[in-house]
Amino acid sequence: MKLALVGQLGAGERRAWQDALAQALPEARWVEAAPGAEVDVALVANPSPGRLQGLQGLKLIQSLWAGVDRLLADATLPAGVPIARMVDPAMSAAMAETALWAVLSLHRGFFDYARQQREAVWRQLPQRRADEVRVAVLGLGEMGATAARRLVSQGYRVAGWSARPREVPDVECLHGDAALPVLLARSDVVVNLLPLTAATRGLFDAQRLALLPEGASLVNLARGGHVVEADLLAALDSGHLRHAVLDVFQAEPLPSENPFWRHPRVTLLPHAAALTDARSAAAVAAANVRAVLAGDTPAHRVEIRRGY
Amino acid sequence: MKLALVGQLGAGERRAWQDALAQALPEARWVEAAPGAEVDVALVANPSPGRLQGLQGLKLIQSLWAGVDRLLADATLPAGVPIARMVDPAMSAAMAETALWAVLSLHRGFFDYARQQREAVWRQLPQRRADEVRVAVLGLGEMGATAARRLVSQGYRVAGWSARPREVPDVECLHGDAALPVLLARSDVVVNLLPLTAATRGLFDAQRLALLPEGASLVNLARGGHVVEADLLAALDSGHLRHAVLDVFQAEPLPSENPFWRHPRVTLLPHAAALTDARSAAAVAAANVRAVLAGDTPAHRVEIRRGY
Repeated sequence: MKLALVGQLGAGERRAWQDALAQALPEARWVEAAPGAEVDVALVANPSPGRLQGLQGLKLIQSLWAGVDRLLADATLPAGVPIARMVDPAMSAAMAETALWAVLSLHRGFFDYARQQREAVWRQLPQRRADEVRVAVLGLGEMGATAARRLVSQGYRVAGWSARPREVPDVECLHGDAALPVLLARSDVVVNLLPLTAATRGLFDAQRLALLPEGASLVNLARGGHVVEADLLAALDSGHLRHAVLDVFQAEPLPSENPFWRHPRVTLLPHAAALTDARSAAAVAAANVRAVLAGDTPAHRVEIRRGY
Repeated sequence: MKLALVGQLGAGERRAWQDALAQALPEARWVEAAPGAEVDVALVANPSPGRLQGLQGLKLIQSLWAGVDRLLADATLPAGVPIARMVDPAMSAAMAETALWAVLSLHRGFFDYARQQREAVWRQLPQRRADEVRVAVLGLGEMGATAARRLVSQGYRVAGWSARPREVPDVECLHGDAALPVLLARSDVVVNLLPLTAATRGLFDAQRLALLPEGASLVNLARGGHVVEADLLAALDSGHLRHAVLDVFQAEPLPSENPFWRHPRVTLLPHAAALTDARSAAAVAAANVRAVLAGDTPAHRVEIRRGY
């Protein structure tokens, strides 16, 4: 089988992927993804638009990243070739860790204590129980469901929301457009883990942020495109929102002049909420490679129409 | 029954305790703890030495705080009156939340990302899986056991240690003096939840900190007296220790000139890892009051000889 590794990977990352994939797929041969080349499977990490054009015999485009919104924006993607998202339990665990850390930090005032430390202020803040904190998890795919379950296990009052009906054990699950404003209006912390699609782009605009109760917080671990950044800044500056934890932005890396860097009520991560771990993700990719070569449908195949 | 509330409580705190205790013990009468006064139960929060002398008919000293090291240092405590620690599941949950937040922050580099944010640096840091992080929890009372179980549920490699043998489901439990250096030498994060006694005072001195692997971190949520602060600073400054999360100090409130406030690898909390919540703790205290008035032994009675 002929594999090509295409995309924005540093030399060290590229080697880590090739080593991990060589272990999982000892029969693989690595080829260059050039127009006219025979390639069975393209393993991609945000390839430049056009990079997958003209490949011969392509049977699978396997994303090495969870989000495929940038990949799908490439109008030259070969038609009819299945595309698969990366769904790796280790990556879902990492995302759930970040969600739990953000909720714990907001619930227990640890961001406020960090500010107090910088000012050498010794002051205890009011302490609530976890069951007094209402957390909404938007998006109930592997990552959202894992995060929601871990938050429930720590005693939080968790409700999940997704566009279509989903069931997650021990989590109250809502769905559909009508349920979203109702949920936002009763949530102290909103954790966004939705896919970025035409339906979810700009979801957090002034109108929806205004639905949140005074003093609520937003945790965006999904995509920068979900948030209208000027509207979020205004909601923070007016005091309506208490805090934002942001891992993703409209422009990445975030330009150094962006006000989020220095905002006292923004905690910022460099798109690091859940990095793909080549060691475990290679096994996931290998299973999909074997599936398509055997004529089966790959797991977590993207539905182009819905956008993820 | 006659109750007295004695200790370092602000007016708001005193009212919250009296309201909560009045609900739990409607038959209670509040009296002043003056020498010669008849008092059935003294509910105490760090009373000044001598404040419990000369009370008549005292049947129980119920601490409203978990630690009793300062209380036991009062040489004038009435002999033979049982003393009970506060063991409240809500307080153990709060402590476990703080322990989990500290371990998540250390494991996933969130303190490092906060530093990067202040410097407007966009850089992803290496990401390990939880099962690659070895956490030692010292002290396996209610708080230590709860923290250890929650860390296990998040996938960490947890080992607990206590002076005497203990069993905690799903946690490897070690005990005794000989096991401690062995455990320290194989731990990436040490969470201290021990009681402060003659045997544990100054536990974290230069010699024991040197046993930790290079790059390990210390989370002290117990008592300032457990740590030789100059030795901890030296271990941080030499680079041997990566980070310290400190909730408790030799002197509290921590003086503003103390170098911990501004140390780049110290995260500091104002003795707020687990505040007593009067709403739930009152029920715990009430159950002990009823027990002693019925002639029974109170729960979580302090053994003076062992010091907790």
